[in-house]
Amino acid sequence: MSVHSKLYEGKAKILYTTDDPEVLLADFKDDATAFNAQKRGTILGKGQINCSISSQLFKQLELNGIKTHYIDSPSPNQMRVKSVKILPLEVVVRNIAAGSLCQQTGLAVGTILQPPLVEFYYKNDPLGDPLLTRDRLLLLELATAEQVDAITNLALQINKFLISFWWQCGITLVDFKLEFGLDSQQQLLLADEISPDTCRLWNTAEADPNRRVMDKDRFRRDLGNVEDAYQEVLQRVLQAVESQN
Amino acid sequence: MSVHSKLYEGKAKILYTTDDPEVLLADFKDDATAFNAQKRGTILGKGQINCSISSQLFKQLELNGIKTHYIDSPSPNQMRVKSVKILPLEVVVRNIAAGSLCQQTGLAVGTILQPPLVEFYYKNDPLGDPLLTRDRLLLLELATAEQVDAITNLALQINKFLISFWWQCGITLVDFKLEFGLDSQQQLLLADEISPDTCRLWNTAEADPNRRVMDKDRFRRDLGNVEDAYQEVLQRVLQAVESQN
Repeated sequence: MSVHSKLYEGKAKILYTTDDPEVLLADFKDDATAFNAQKRGTILGKGQINCSISSQLFKQLELNGIKTHYIDSPSPNQMRVKSVKILPLEVVVRNIAAGSLCQQTGLAVGTILQPPLVEFYYKNDPLGDPLLTRDRLLLLELATAEQVDAITNLALQINKFLISFWWQCGITLVDFKLEFGLDSQQQLLLADEISPDTCRLWNTAEADPNRRVMDKDRFRRDLGNVEDAYQEVLQRVLQAVESQN
Repeated sequence: MSVHSKLYEGKAKILYTTDDPEVLLADFKDDATAFNAQKRGTILGKGQINCSISSQLFKQLELNGIKTHYIDSPSPNQMRVKSVKILPLEVVVRNIAAGSLCQQTGLAVGTILQPPLVEFYYKNDPLGDPLLTRDRLLLLELATAEQVDAITNLALQINKFLISFWWQCGITLVDFKLEFGLDSQQQLLLADEISPDTCRLWNTAEADPNRRVMDKDRFRRDLGNVEDAYQEVLQRVLQAVESQN
């Protein structure tokens, strides 16, 4: 596979074209940003860790009937993916209240959300990724009503799988963000990544509210030991996958 | 009617109990606030103007089959209303994009919204009255699903009436905020007020985007001539009501 030009550089990944127009190469970076890129830093090894975790989770999801953009991982921080048109939506699934949901509603952190909440945010940095009502999403024509329903169902299916997968890792899945894209046949594929950058993951056995955090909140909230937490998540994912084979 | 003690003081009105436990007296103030009370001022005569406009609109709405909290207006800045438990929701109906909708979505001011948008905000000053998705509203138990559906239908009916009423006044109804309450029989009543404080009203014949504004945006955006605009709205309302009799 020969890599061609840089197609797009995001906050955590660079996408390159390849000799196959249907295939892109995603290069995972160590750069970390938070609060709409107002906070910037580096998490050493993050690129490799997030690429490895995402690769394992995409493979597991494919085995469970979820279509993703994942093809393979030619090196630890690189993923070959199907070229898709990303919908400008951040789809957030919440099992436990945390983050902006608590700030905006006054709900206590840790409140169990049963059934889980599926929320849509407008993926738009200048606007600060605002929360969307269904009506606003449709008004802005960010997706069709059929796509919204299909994405909601997929997100809940993915949540069911991920809750149980992370559970095997001794990790409580608080919430996570998904992105979806359309391939050349207008088929919805799960895209982007699933990693400690995009999930809130709490060490199930740890009661202390700061020590249990195993995700990007360590960076956002200056909790320290960011690299260790990411590394620990990867080790637990690899062990869980190993134990299934 | 003897007035008893002050029950509640809001930003624009004071509510007093009366000798009838089912009846409250609302005293409309000249105080003006904007941006969650970060901006404060006085609009001379506003109390009387908003009380008079609201009284006329509530009477017209009742004639059109919409149940409201309005009883009568014993003096120009006072309204007797049925005592209701106000639902902690600001129900916003939007016919034309303006205000926070534009800031949050990037839609151009003036974009026609067809069908109109009915949006729910959490009436909660410390949280800054955040936008609610239907799921968040239900999660917070701010109303039942049946109440949300009933309110949406009522808001659209009220919008239909108000578009046509303001049209007769030479005024374009851009958007407006409603509040609803439950009476002792758990019946939904339209409450609060309908006035230049709670509606965006554009002078239909005026093309200039600043000069056409006839509502609280004159105060919010320091456009000047606030009192004149409010007075002009009242005169047009009285003429429209007159011409119907």
